Amino acid sequence: MVRASITAQVLLAGAASAALFPDCQNGPLSNNTVCDTTASVTARAEALVAALTNEEKFNLTGSTSPGVPRLGLPSYIWWNEALHGVAESPGVSFAEEGDYSYATSFPQPILMGAAFDDALINAVATVISTEARAFNNANRSSLDYWTPNINPYKDPRWGRGQETPGEDPYHLKSYVAALIDGLQGGKNPDILKVVATCKHFVAYDEESWHGVLRYEFDAQVTTQDLSEYYMQPFQTCARDAGVVSIMCSYNALNGVPTCLDPYILQDVLRDHWNWTAPENYVTTDCDSFESAYGYQHYADTREQIVADGLNAGTELNCGTYYPSHLPAAFSQGLFNQSQIDRAVMKIYSALIRLGYFDPASATPYRSLGFSDVATPAAGALALKSAEEGIVLLKNDGTLPLQMASGQNTTIAFIGGWANATTQMQGNYAGVAPYLVSPLQAAQRTAGINAIYGGTGGDPTTDGWDEAYGAAEQADIVIYADGSAPAESNDRERIDWTGSKIDLVSWLASIGKPTIVLNMGDQLDNAPFLANPNISAILWAGYPGQDGGTALMNILTGTTAPAGRLPVTQYPGNYVYEVPMTDMNLRPNDTTGNPGRTYKWYDNATIPFGYGMHYTNFTANFAASSNSNTNTNTNSSTQQSYDISSLISSCDNATHPYLDLCPFATPIRVNISNTGTNPSDYVTLLFIAGDHGPQPYPLKQLVAYQRLFNVTAGQSQTANLNLTLGSLARYDEMGNQVLYPGDYSLLVDVPTQATYNFTLTGSETVMDYWPQPRN
Amino acid sequence: MVRASITAQVLLAGAASAALFPDCQNGPLSNNTVCDTTASVTARAEALVAALTNEEKFNLTGSTSPGVPRLGLPSYIWWNEALHGVAESPGVSFAEEGDYSYATSFPQPILMGAAFDDALINAVATVISTEARAFNNANRSSLDYWTPNINPYKDPRWGRGQETPGEDPYHLKSYVAALIDGLQGGKNPDILKVVATCKHFVAYDEESWHGVLRYEFDAQVTTQDLSEYYMQPFQTCARDAGVVSIMCSYNALNGVPTCLDPYILQDVLRDHWNWTAPENYVTTDCDSFESAYGYQHYADTREQIVADGLNAGTELNCGTYYPSHLPAAFSQGLFNQSQIDRAVMKIYSALIRLGYFDPASATPYRSLGFSDVATPAAGALALKSAEEGIVLLKNDGTLPLQMASGQNTTIAFIGGWANATTQMQGNYAGVAPYLVSPLQAAQRTAGINAIYGGTGGDPTTDGWDEAYGAAEQADIVIYADGSAPAESNDRERIDWTGSKIDLVSWLASIGKPTIVLNMGDQLDNAPFLANPNISAILWAGYPGQDGGTALMNILTGTTAPAGRLPVTQYPGNYVYEVPMTDMNLRPNDTTGNPGRTYKWYDNATIPFGYGMHYTNFTANFAASSNSNTNTNTNSSTQQSYDISSLISSCDNATHPYLDLCPFATPIRVNISNTGTNPSDYVTLLFIAGDHGPQPYPLKQLVAYQRLFNVTAGQSQTANLNLTLGSLARYDEMGNQVLYPGDYSLLVDVPTQATYNFTLTGSETVMDYWPQPRN
Repeated sequence: MVRASITAQVLLAGAASAALFPDCQNGPLSNNTVCDTTASVTARAEALVAALTNEEKFNLTGSTSPGVPRLGLPSYIWWNEALHGVAESPGVSFAEEGDYSYATSFPQPILMGAAFDDALINAVATVISTEARAFNNANRSSLDYWTPNINPYKDPRWGRGQETPGEDPYHLKSYVAALIDGLQGGKNPDILKVVATCKHFVAYDEESWHGVLRYEFDAQVTTQDLSEYYMQPFQTCARDAGVVSIMCSYNALNGVPTCLDPYILQDVLRDHWNWTAPENYVTTDCDSFESAYGYQHYADTREQIVADGLNAGTELNCGTYYPSHLPAAFSQGLFNQSQIDRAVMKIYSALIRLGYFDPASATPYRSLGFSDVATPAAGALALKSAEEGIVLLKNDGTLPLQMASGQNTTIAFIGGWANATTQMQGNYAGVAPYLVSPLQAAQRTAGINAIYGGTGGDPTTDGWDEAYGAAEQADIVIYADGSAPAESNDRERIDWTGSKIDLVSWLASIGKPTIVLNMGDQLDNAPFLANPNISAILWAGYPGQDGGTALMNILTGTTAPAGRLPVTQYPGNYVYEVPMTDMNLRPNDTTGNPGRTYKWYDNATIPFGYGMHYTNFTANFAASSNSNTNTNTNSSTQQSYDISSLISSCDNATHPYLDLCPFATPIRVNISNTGTNPSDYVTLLFIAGDHGPQPYPLKQLVAYQRLFNVTAGQSQTANLNLTLGSLARYDEMGNQVLYPGDYSLLVDVPTQATYNFTLTGSETVMDYWPQPRN
Repeated sequence: MVRASITAQVLLAGAASAALFPDCQNGPLSNNTVCDTTASVTARAEALVAALTNEEKFNLTGSTSPGVPRLGLPSYIWWNEALHGVAESPGVSFAEEGDYSYATSFPQPILMGAAFDDALINAVATVISTEARAFNNANRSSLDYWTPNINPYKDPRWGRGQETPGEDPYHLKSYVAALIDGLQGGKNPDILKVVATCKHFVAYDEESWHGVLRYEFDAQVTTQDLSEYYMQPFQTCARDAGVVSIMCSYNALNGVPTCLDPYILQDVLRDHWNWTAPENYVTTDCDSFESAYGYQHYADTREQIVADGLNAGTELNCGTYYPSHLPAAFSQGLFNQSQIDRAVMKIYSALIRLGYFDPASATPYRSLGFSDVATPAAGALALKSAEEGIVLLKNDGTLPLQMASGQNTTIAFIGGWANATTQMQGNYAGVAPYLVSPLQAAQRTAGINAIYGGTGGDPTTDGWDEAYGAAEQADIVIYADGSAPAESNDRERIDWTGSKIDLVSWLASIGKPTIVLNMGDQLDNAPFLANPNISAILWAGYPGQDGGTALMNILTGTTAPAGRLPVTQYPGNYVYEVPMTDMNLRPNDTTGNPGRTYKWYDNATIPFGYGMHYTNFTANFAASSNSNTNTNTNSSTQQSYDISSLISSCDNATHPYLDLCPFATPIRVNISNTGTNPSDYVTLLFIAGDHGPQPYPLKQLVAYQRLFNVTAGQSQTANLNLTLGSLARYDEMGNQVLYPGDYSLLVDVPTQATYNFTLTGSETVMDYWPQPRN
């Protein structure tokens, strides 16, 4: 029985904590070309596949792979996680204590996204891949990581929005390119550091809402929204950033389960984006095939499901459907020999590119060890990433805190996150070397007498007396609480609960300066913005292992806040205006959809890109040869550009994809600190205007640059590189088009400077989008 | 500051695990009439209140009461739970080990309800109150218990439906009367054993659905549905069963928070139902006042909220709003002195009735100790209650299991409940003396080789190979899984998940007899009913400490199954047909509401009252003087009754409430076991017919009796006592009315025998329902 033999082997494989390397010196494969480091990747993979029986090949297609003991091919666990640090997952095994019992735990991507600092992201990813390699060398992890989650965070209810950098596709694309570079060890390196996996392809951003489970959700997406929005981060991953692996999702897209869909896996991913390196493989989510069969009933038999997946271009199956059902599907003639060979070739090509079959001396990463894990520098980077992301949302002048001189300032910490530890890590966490809560950080701060007033109690008033008593004793009251949805669990509501508003307003009525820390995901802060007894509000997301220190550094002014909201903060009633299952981005009077993201929705409590400082900044466009500043939209000297000239001047050799061609010279924006405190400043540049298909987006982010330590009275200049893609819009066919019309560049939120220009000539398609098959 | 002093006292009270008794011999109260056992309850309570300052009175109104140290009045925790055994709660403290480290843990009420055996319920409640008294004597609990939850379980999504006996009001009324008698130590005893609390008054059966939290839900209920359905169990509690306490709920009813509503707390509860004993007190849920203020925004100030509550008739506040805000409300003149005096009088009258101020020798319960806890008899009763409730839903003859003689029968146990322990307890559990899972019970059964195939994995296929391997090795496959919603958490879905159906159908395809145990709440078993590879289905709810043994006894035929579904098993798509927030019971073409409960909905997957046996039964009406059997609806000899005669013959002295007057002589139904196995049989009697306001209910339960051990070939007779209330319906004003028209009595589900009769004369109101104030 094939079945029984798989069972035994899988159980055996499950006992190993992670992969060993094949023995290319003395093992059965030593004379196989797969072990020949001078051969091409393809030749090496072909040689391996040639040595396998079909039964062995089928057994290799599941995420907990038994390997091939006969050939000394080790078992291998493909499923490893490292969302914001090496994380608990089937392939990762933390030690009980001592070495390898922890790894650096950075903030969640949603907070790192708020830093708008791609170099920071690259540095973080570099630390993560270093630590991952160290774990692998200790046989405590494998080399394929199912990170990043790069679905745009378009609905505030999504349980996994925290795993992403936010809602804006330009931001996600820029962020993910920096991240993949750091994880994989550069762009197309000789030896991959680790394999990154962009997930979840595609239109996956619903967990469980009103009974609709992600396993059965059929996302109905227009070709326009698909091309313009949902596909964009994956385009960067596959076409531009060289990601090795892509994970197809649980959901169906317009009726077809994504892991079985040749339109997205072949027409878009392979044919249109040229994602055709030997090592480029698609894996399912865990267990997408079961979802396609048991939930979506997409085919009558399990064999047809796996055959459809293999034929569509899915090479690896997180789960057991492939190894369990491919043998019978093959017997039934549902796929060709070439398809199973291709699948095994691709996944093993990835291992070849990781140096899996190479001598240790031939790879730059095999000597990494625990001394490279959770180093002081990594810890400092974790702290810095949290500090850079924290966003100041309200301040009546209370912040930075003024400490009483010569005596301690008593601060009461109250709320469910006041003494948060693992909460600060969020989804897909590992074991952190330490977790410093806000309360602990305050207790370590000189001049502060930090007292704890408990979690506050919600919905009952248990603990309210304790909280009130602490607030009465304190000079300053800090309420830290929030909302932390999770995988499999979307939020129904995005407002603070009635009892939390009641408690905080009761505490604030005492008359002490009262500061609210909105932790986790965004909540509608309107009640606290409107309450004059609330002095300040900060959003600090999931700030990771040193989150409390980061918060205290911001509160005391040791570090100036400069983060910007990476998502819209919606009013609480937004959840009643559009079902989570409505994937449309544009407002629609018929359905009542008020529009999604800052591009299409303008009634935010606090808008995307907002963030206050401890100083004041002014922003102005700098004069330059190609971009005259103007702030008057009726200016007679308005610059104009001819579309055909823009396109013909693009150097095709350097820029095979038109959307990446530079537009004019860099836009230069002068940023002046007119206040009294030094501070970083995130320059955000948007484009807007009446051009292309209606409705017009309110504006779209086209560039950003974080300036560091702009001192009081000084200026710095941001150089913002636009591309032709910055100017483009998408038609209903999903084509990327340059349209004649009026354009405005807008700096900051709210807008501080405007530069207007015009495109002339005829509308021109830069990229023809592949059309759906059905 | 009043506030600070409350804080300190509450914290102090919190340190004690439960109440001590006041020292009536030598304490400061020894000369107060409250200690005089010869005085009336009212005189004693008045004397106590006369000794208190107003500040002391306000401090006594919260659930964690500081008492009055000055007077030797001990602190007291009013919040104790004992839903199906003494349970974890603020007032209950289990020891870490040894004596008082556990208490008998019975099945959840939903399974005990399925037994349709009121004597069983009385016996269970008697054990619970005995164990509660033992805990109190050891200073490990107080004497007021916030049980039972008697809201009708009308929506299959409700997270707390498991805490109730089911959906039918007649059944709930009969059950709760037996329960209160057991808890309180009889009807109106000299010394109360414990105080029972019927909750949640009223129309509370929603936790959190589509973002609507119970704290803010405004239940819109017609007067007809309110009187006929939602109020009925509370009528029995307050008017007929002598329950000492009633808990008002979180939700609002038609715009008014229930704890602030004089219509239900005064007009209905006190005035209409004569619930006016000195010790009858209303407590809030925890913390209903905060809900009324912070969530429902029912008044502008916290002081107005508590004053409204006190004035409406709420005496005790689970939470802190009363002690925190009554002082300021009093200063503002929002309530009179008499109101706070009344509140303290009532709650202390309850303690007086519990013998709290009496010498130990004067009460029958003060000598109970740990030897009275978790006795072998109590354990046997816990097992029996589970066995009596388990319902057989499908059987192709596989059950009872036929063991191979002379060799072991191998049974594979698979699924999330196959090795369930604490899951079998459900909401509001205590620490059980032992928890025997189905797997463990099988391992203890001679002749069975029980193997464990794991939980199965959902939604991923982790563990499917293990499950499949176990099933292949076994002679019989048992899949035990289910759905267990919880407090604060309603279900979105009531169907088996796609992956569970996929796994079970895959396992069943092996060809071994496959048995599904639907644990927890009802799931739509249609896919398993339709699958010929599934041999049998049982529903076993939350079977408590010995649930595995109960299941094995049923499976092997040691005990014959005779439970009946206490709720409708709805098809999965029911959840899309009516919002949980729609409180209407009757079908409505405009809203699309298909009707609720078996009375108004007839498209069940498996109907209310259904349950198979290991034998066959026939049912026939017995001939008797007043009730001629007939099964022909056109019978010319049909019995008829004149409405005015029925009413005038009621003896008002014996039956002050007309609905409780007997109707004719007992209906006698002969039950014959025509099969080969002995078995209990639950006789269910329904009424139906075209009479009264339209729409007509499909049928309504009017009586039940469980017959025990009806042996093969033998008969027993059920004597079913009908009342005038059995014949009544409710008009739109909520009045209870006898209507002329045709009536049918129906035995069993599906109907096995029918008896038709006619009421003649004029429609006559038996009970005029108090009309809403607004």
